[in-house]
Amino acid sequence: MSRQSSQDFQPVSGLDLPRFAGVPTFMRLPHLTIEHERVAEVDIGLIGVPWDAGTTNRPGPRHGPRQLRDYSTMIRSTNPFNRISPFEIANCADLGDVAVNPADVQDTMNRITEFYLGVLEKNIVPVTAGGDHLVSLPVLRALAKDGPVGMIHMDAHTDLFHSYFGGSLYTHGTPFRRAIEEGLLDPRRVIQIGIRGTMYDDEDITFGQREGVTIVTVDELFARGIDDVMAEAQTVVGSSPTYCSFDIDFIDPAYAPGTGTPEIGGPTSYQAQQAVRGLEGINLIGADLVEVSPPFDPGGGTAWLGVSIMFELMCILASRIDARRVRD
Amino acid sequence: MSRQSSQDFQPVSGLDLPRFAGVPTFMRLPHLTIEHERVAEVDIGLIGVPWDAGTTNRPGPRHGPRQLRDYSTMIRSTNPFNRISPFEIANCADLGDVAVNPADVQDTMNRITEFYLGVLEKNIVPVTAGGDHLVSLPVLRALAKDGPVGMIHMDAHTDLFHSYFGGSLYTHGTPFRRAIEEGLLDPRRVIQIGIRGTMYDDEDITFGQREGVTIVTVDELFARGIDDVMAEAQTVVGSSPTYCSFDIDFIDPAYAPGTGTPEIGGPTSYQAQQAVRGLEGINLIGADLVEVSPPFDPGGGTAWLGVSIMFELMCILASRIDARRVRD
Amino acid sequence: MSRQSSQDFQPVSGLDLPRFAGVPTFMRLPHLTIEHERVAEVDIGLIGVPWDAGTTNRPGPRHGPRQLRDYSTMIRSTNPFNRISPFEIANCADLGDVAVNPADVQDTMNRITEFYLGVLEKNIVPVTAGGDHLVSLPVLRALAKDGPVGMIHMDAHTDLFHSYFGGSLYTHGTPFRRAIEEGLLDPRRVIQIGIRGTMYDDEDITFGQREGVTIVTVDELFARGIDDVMAEAQTVVGSSPTYCSFDIDFIDPAYAPGTGTPEIGGPTSYQAQQAVRGLEGINLIGADLVEVSPPFDPGGGTAWLGVSIMFELMCILASRIDARRVRD
Amino acid sequence: MSRQSSQDFQPVSGLDLPRFAGVPTFMRLPHLTIEHERVAEVDIGLIGVPWDAGTTNRPGPRHGPRQLRDYSTMIRSTNPFNRISPFEIANCADLGDVAVNPADVQDTMNRITEFYLGVLEKNIVPVTAGGDHLVSLPVLRALAKDGPVGMIHMDAHTDLFHSYFGGSLYTHGTPFRRAIEEGLLDPRRVIQIGIRGTMYDDEDITFGQREGVTIVTVDELFARGIDDVMAEAQTVVGSSPTYCSFDIDFIDPAYAPGTGTPEIGGPTSYQAQQAVRGLEGINLIGADLVEVSPPFDPGGGTAWLGVSIMFELMCILASRIDARRVRD
Amino acid sequence: MSRQSSQDFQPVSGLDLPRFAGVPTFMRLPHLTIEHERVAEVDIGLIGVPWDAGTTNRPGPRHGPRQLRDYSTMIRSTNPFNRISPFEIANCADLGDVAVNPADVQDTMNRITEFYLGVLEKNIVPVTAGGDHLVSLPVLRALAKDGPVGMIHMDAHTDLFHSYFGGSLYTHGTPFRRAIEEGLLDPRRVIQIGIRGTMYDDEDITFGQREGVTIVTVDELFARGIDDVMAEAQTVVGSSPTYCSFDIDFIDPAYAPGTGTPEIGGPTSYQAQQAVRGLEGINLIGADLVEVSPPFDPGGGTAWLGVSIMFELMCILASRIDARRVRD
Amino acid sequence: MSRQSSQDFQPVSGLDLPRFAGVPTFMRLPHLTIEHERVAEVDIGLIGVPWDAGTTNRPGPRHGPRQLRDYSTMIRSTNPFNRISPFEIANCADLGDVAVNPADVQDTMNRITEFYLGVLEKNIVPVTAGGDHLVSLPVLRALAKDGPVGMIHMDAHTDLFHSYFGGSLYTHGTPFRRAIEEGLLDPRRVIQIGIRGTMYDDEDITFGQREGVTIVTVDELFARGIDDVMAEAQTVVGSSPTYCSFDIDFIDPAYAPGTGTPEIGGPTSYQAQQAVRGLEGINLIGADLVEVSPPFDPGGGTAWLGVSIMFELMCILASRIDARRVRD
Repeated sequence: MSRQSSQDFQPVSGLDLPRFAGVPTFMRLPHLTIEHERVAEVDIGLIGVPWDAGTTNRPGPRHGPRQLRDYSTMIRSTNPFNRISPFEIANCADLGDVAVNPADVQDTMNRITEFYLGVLEKNIVPVTAGGDHLVSLPVLRALAKDGPVGMIHMDAHTDLFHSYFGGSLYTHGTPFRRAIEEGLLDPRRVIQIGIRGTMYDDEDITFGQREGVTIVTVDELFARGIDDVMAEAQTVVGSSPTYCSFDIDFIDPAYAPGTGTPEIGGPTSYQAQQAVRGLEGINLIGADLVEVSPPFDPGGGTAWLGVSIMFELMCILASRIDARRVRD
Repeated sequence: MSRQSSQDFQPVSGLDLPRFAGVPTFMRLPHLTIEHERVAEVDIGLIGVPWDAGTTNRPGPRHGPRQLRDYSTMIRSTNPFNRISPFEIANCADLGDVAVNPADVQDTMNRITEFYLGVLEKNIVPVTAGGDHLVSLPVLRALAKDGPVGMIHMDAHTDLFHSYFGGSLYTHGTPFRRAIEEGLLDPRRVIQIGIRGTMYDDEDITFGQREGVTIVTVDELFARGIDDVMAEAQTVVGSSPTYCSFDIDFIDPAYAPGTGTPEIGGPTSYQAQQAVRGLEGINLIGADLVEVSPPFDPGGGTAWLGVSIMFELMCILASRIDARRVRD
Repeated sequence: MSRQSSQDFQPVSGLDLPRFAGVPTFMRLPHLTIEHERVAEVDIGLIGVPWDAGTTNRPGPRHGPRQLRDYSTMIRSTNPFNRISPFEIANCADLGDVAVNPADVQDTMNRITEFYLGVLEKNIVPVTAGGDHLVSLPVLRALAKDGPVGMIHMDAHTDLFHSYFGGSLYTHGTPFRRAIEEGLLDPRRVIQIGIRGTMYDDEDITFGQREGVTIVTVDELFARGIDDVMAEAQTVVGSSPTYCSFDIDFIDPAYAPGTGTPEIGGPTSYQAQQAVRGLEGINLIGADLVEVSPPFDPGGGTAWLGVSIMFELMCILASRIDARRVRD
Repeated sequence: MSRQSSQDFQPVSGLDLPRFAGVPTFMRLPHLTIEHERVAEVDIGLIGVPWDAGTTNRPGPRHGPRQLRDYSTMIRSTNPFNRISPFEIANCADLGDVAVNPADVQDTMNRITEFYLGVLEKNIVPVTAGGDHLVSLPVLRALAKDGPVGMIHMDAHTDLFHSYFGGSLYTHGTPFRRAIEEGLLDPRRVIQIGIRGTMYDDEDITFGQREGVTIVTVDELFARGIDDVMAEAQTVVGSSPTYCSFDIDFIDPAYAPGTGTPEIGGPTSYQAQQAVRGLEGINLIGADLVEVSPPFDPGGGTAWLGVSIMFELMCILASRIDARRVRD
Repeated sequence: MSRQSSQDFQPVSGLDLPRFAGVPTFMRLPHLTIEHERVAEVDIGLIGVPWDAGTTNRPGPRHGPRQLRDYSTMIRSTNPFNRISPFEIANCADLGDVAVNPADVQDTMNRITEFYLGVLEKNIVPVTAGGDHLVSLPVLRALAKDGPVGMIHMDAHTDLFHSYFGGSLYTHGTPFRRAIEEGLLDPRRVIQIGIRGTMYDDEDITFGQREGVTIVTVDELFARGIDDVMAEAQTVVGSSPTYCSFDIDFIDPAYAPGTGTPEIGGPTSYQAQQAVRGLEGINLIGADLVEVSPPFDPGGGTAWLGVSIMFELMCILASRIDARRVRD
Repeated sequence: MSRQSSQDFQPVSGLDLPRFAGVPTFMRLPHLTIEHERVAEVDIGLIGVPWDAGTTNRPGPRHGPRQLRDYSTMIRSTNPFNRISPFEIANCADLGDVAVNPADVQDTMNRITEFYLGVLEKNIVPVTAGGDHLVSLPVLRALAKDGPVGMIHMDAHTDLFHSYFGGSLYTHGTPFRRAIEEGLLDPRRVIQIGIRGTMYDDEDITFGQREGVTIVTVDELFARGIDDVMAEAQTVVGSSPTYCSFDIDFIDPAYAPGTGTPEIGGPTSYQAQQAVRGLEGINLIGADLVEVSPPFDPGGGTAWLGVSIMFELMCILASRIDARRVRD
């Protein structure tokens, strides 16, 4: 494939600067602020949301974007499975971190939504590095500004709870309840994969099923196999705009110890790759990778896993950009 | 299912006190000493045995109960697979730790047996958190006071050796040899699953096979699948009283690094869950989870895995209590 | 000294149960809730406040009380320096953790103040294990209910800032600004010792000096010596009721790495002991030890240091209780 | 099987000295220098090459041999799968480390080749503990002194690149390109298994395929299964002399975090064992285990995995020695 | 002091973006490449040299600049001791990392010297973050282009050795031997402070003393006190141009464990601050902070110490820039 | 000083083999068993006693000798303070580990005493690497076979307790009580330095003082200074044979976290060096370094500190051997 992207939006080559060197931007891409004069040329924007005010148990994901940037400098350019090189297809850039307010949940959610509205205005497809899972809610508020979207959601938890600790509505256990209530997600076009872990009650699942969400437990996932479930995912979301939200705790904690609410009995890293590769062809309009918590994995293996998944997501997004160009 | 347990024997709710808060008892249950006036109301008792005098290589399991208690506060109330909530069915409590004597093996074994006789007298089903595997011997001395019991034993090692280092008969490599010799276990009703690791010789296996123990190596386990082996386990132990002993080193060290004698090539955490869930219907009279060694996993992933398995065991035990009630 | 405390309020002896065994309460003391029928017998109450909503940079102190409880089980009964045994003099107990609300700052501050008002009503002297430094504010609201108190404050930071990030008034950098503004502290009876670290500006120091706070930088502390500064501290606070707030980051991060805002160039652990021992004779009505952040020191050395300081504080408090008894 | 090895070349027994005791030689074997008078009696020689000058990203494998020796003292004598005891069959010894020159790549390569020529002269089958993967090149220069050999290569990477960073020809990404160019390997008798990870380009794969190397990606490996691929490996290398090179990053980083260039989506430890056991019957003339990097896994799980694989390799080599004896 | 620096060369404020957020440049300063159009406005340039090819024992400092950048984002603007705010006085910027060649020592030294010549041409005072100590040699080749300079060298080692392992002249144990031989340093204007650690021989010290270098062992330093030795340092270097090289292993390994050649019995972090503050008034033309090795301190305490020292060095350099302006 | 030692008893030179390479013996010395034909040539023997059966709280020192050997390979040949090179003066060797029996305390004590009697018979001065402090008792049984000896004991604890947990007489808290009772130590020639830490009671101190032991608390040590106390130590022990026992917990846990019973408020590493250097001139007949516990410091800083102290002790012992030769 001949390059369709600009030379100015390439990762710094390991031949010019060793991979452990340099200021660590996502994937060694150029760092542009949203005000930068050339930002409109960007096709895929990598954005950090260093925020964990939604975390009810063990905080830490606010440090996620930095550790993910650090490990992302070891990612090379091409996917060995599908031979997609997102940097060849699309102008990619690191758009920096959203300026969150660690002391105010509502203010921060507004700041995030505003940031993403600016990104969408420039026609940039956003790939988010969280932050905890509450981050997905303000992102969806921007992405669904023109109507509800579908979602493929890989996670150990449904995040469909109503509230927490005396009525708090905005935590990392509630974003998709809110998103459905706010009309950001079309629940019949939502599939949740990998659900497991001990339960308080089944209030979340009851809500989801009533609204039409497809919930695939890890038991079902293992029994049917990744490919079969991803085929169903394609059917569920159809051809309309769809978001992908990937919580790192989807994967077993042996692979991803650096997260706040691990649940044993999860998929392997290879199964995670298979799942993301199974998104090929979906009309994906954005994606996030959330809940990497560096204090619980200072060695960084979880961050390395996280950026490897982010790269897989970028390949799917680039592939769709490429397909649309061909079509146009 | 309507609650059959008392409100006084419930875990502290995360709505009343965040899960990281409070004095860490097992599963956030009330802590009752065996002398407590209401101890006779307890159905399932969680007991720590912080002892590793049987450890011949790398000590540490004496610190196991404390780390297990710590991580157990993240366990919620209901099993997502079988929807069992042990706290709904049975009055559960933390009965504290046995007062071991770190300087005297025989004295400690007597103290443990005596403690468990007291527990059984109150009609409490014991779930033990070790400690090293020698802990199972004095526990069995109490449980088998009325005759030999069967056992489902998940482990990388048979623990059927005769002796160690110049004739020491009581180590974490010998408990089940002793238990068979002492008539605590009926060897024809014993199945050992997951056996692997380099061998000194096959003295243990020869003994076991001669006595009629069913030994399933990890190779056989992987070839046949968990379900098939657990079906055999049901046949081996039959309907008579049976103990379950779960050594955390049954699971691969990528999942359970915090143990003293890890062996590569083991099952995943999901396979471990499947194995325990396969105990459903067995006449289980007690269970233990041993060999979690915090100094070798300060991050606590092994302890989290350990308490997740303990919870699975509690579900099986509660289910049997429930079944017996129905029958009665 | 003959025992003046009840046998029922003693630490569990290491001769009855090894120090690594048992449910870890503070100092192995009995755990009483504030509703317990015998709570009025308690002289010194150890209280955890597992909360870090005031932390603007690296969260974690919400996990402090649990790790402090764990390491506190290695504390023995008598201080080798002054031969004080607080458990001989005073009935000591673990009063549990305040039920904080991780999702609401104001609600939690109210819960804390209310809890401490209950403690004071029972005539119990509170020793607090944080939590971040914002914890001291709601505690002072209870302690100063009858008028402003003095304070000896050991810390790398003044915590006298006005606000943070767009006006947030309640963070771990502002508690003593608020406490002075609210009339909880008499600034002329406040001394801050160990101040260092790079500065944004000197707004905090200017405020403090204007109000009459005595600020001793670490440079001055090292130049004058601990004893000289503690003598000044005695003069500053005089004989009226005084609080002691000890931030673990007072001590150099080589000794206390497990904290969120470490500053190099601090005192040693021995100098910290000297400083606390220098409180002898002060009319101390309570104390706290804050900012121990387990995720940044999983090995636990910081927690061990923290509980060792808590024990020194308990000795001072017990000594004052003893003196008052003699006087009465 | 009756012992065919000398009593003087046995591991120190755990009955004579506990496994954590003693100077840690490989597998607790006697340490003989190549000049030792009895070295000619050795059948299998374990050799460390503590060198990582070929590492372009994260150094550390120079510390590999020491950590591998440390953990190797936990290996017992017999393989539970195939019941092979290499120490029964063959005289095994620790031949120490090659005296590498950390400041000169060419000098070190010459020293390594010279060392191995000395080993081969004594008719000793070498098992190498790296060091980074560049180590394999000078080893092959010795082993292939009489003509090209075949190779079974387990790795996430092909290591077939031409050069690095402005023309450097000797790095851990290039050894097998050089080995093919130098006629040390017969590319049609080379199979590479487990290949994955993001790519710069496909220059390595193009070269390999053009030369006739069989490349099995991890996707193909998982789709076909270990046994099927190992059967192909047997066909590819045939009955002529063959080398086995095992890069620890073949295995997923959840199992082997202690390595410099981890790639997610790899095999389990059990699959790695299956792969090595699948070498049974091949005319193996030597083997290496490389890229264990202790600074990235101070806990040592990767080293334990590494020596477990080394033991599996020794079993295959001993089995071949045994077969050859029978034949002779 | 009114600001003399441009608003465009300030650290990102913690009020605009929390300190854990954003792409981590040194001290949150703007990142300018040496080709940037505005680079000539820079007064103090922070430069990373991620290189450890000179490390003969335990590698790792190549990862130093990245970890130092990460922790530098916690540095605030003003020095509490001397109230200097370097960002007020001077335009400061992150000039990125030198593009080292990990596979070629001479090539890399040339690249470094060339980079620094470019920096000096722009009249920028360089502050270097290593990398191992060999880094100082090519930097001095640039700085001393117009004649030998003086040096204040804080270190546990003299780094005055002739060669290593069979004649290698360029390692982290030899840079200042070379620098004296090459006429880059005037040995009579060099003082080395903190020397300790076991010795191979005294070849280095003999050379140094013969050439007129002033060597202050740690024993002498402790006996005389920091202030006295720094006064001597002022005398030794006089008023001519002087470089400061600070090896993190100057400080005791309890404070700085993350380094490759630690030596016990070293100064505290406070003594290190005192030493750097004692440089006030010296005609300093540049400085480096070397030998921070992240793999040996993943927790990052050593990096935090390192950037705190870098900040102290920046204050001295800014103060001199300020003084020169006044004079001009 | 011209070499008085044999070329055959020198450390492997770093010029022949890099310091990270090779089988790790103590100080890279030749490893001789006590049966070796040339063992009688050895002057100073380094011996490991990998045993912690006396540890009542947190086990681990059984792993001490191995980690100490590992880090000892970074020790060079000459002491920078006193310029003593023990390897020049004396034939030094690694005599391996005593074959302890982890399952039998009395058997192991007998094995240790027997081993040391063999060492003394060869006229070798033993330097022991523990193991926990109980190790000193069986060593003293050998060393004091001809009558009681004096002792300089650096420790946070007196280890003079009578018994533990129901009467156990042989733990790491009782060795010197037993040694005095058995007439191995002359209590009037014993000085204990650095004593601190919370106390159960003062039974140990009362016993010691009654017997005439000189006890120097850390408070007294800091008040008087190291030199003054070491001068008293010289007076206390006089010119008769004297043992030195150094517990690593003498030093503050910031420097030595890897130990089972740390006590805050201890000396620095430099003060520890000063203390050992203050032994110069004492008639030292042996020494030990005990209580290094690797599981509590996997990073190895404590082991590095431990071997650095062992080297200081070797210098004192070599100096005395040298002095005796001159005298003879």
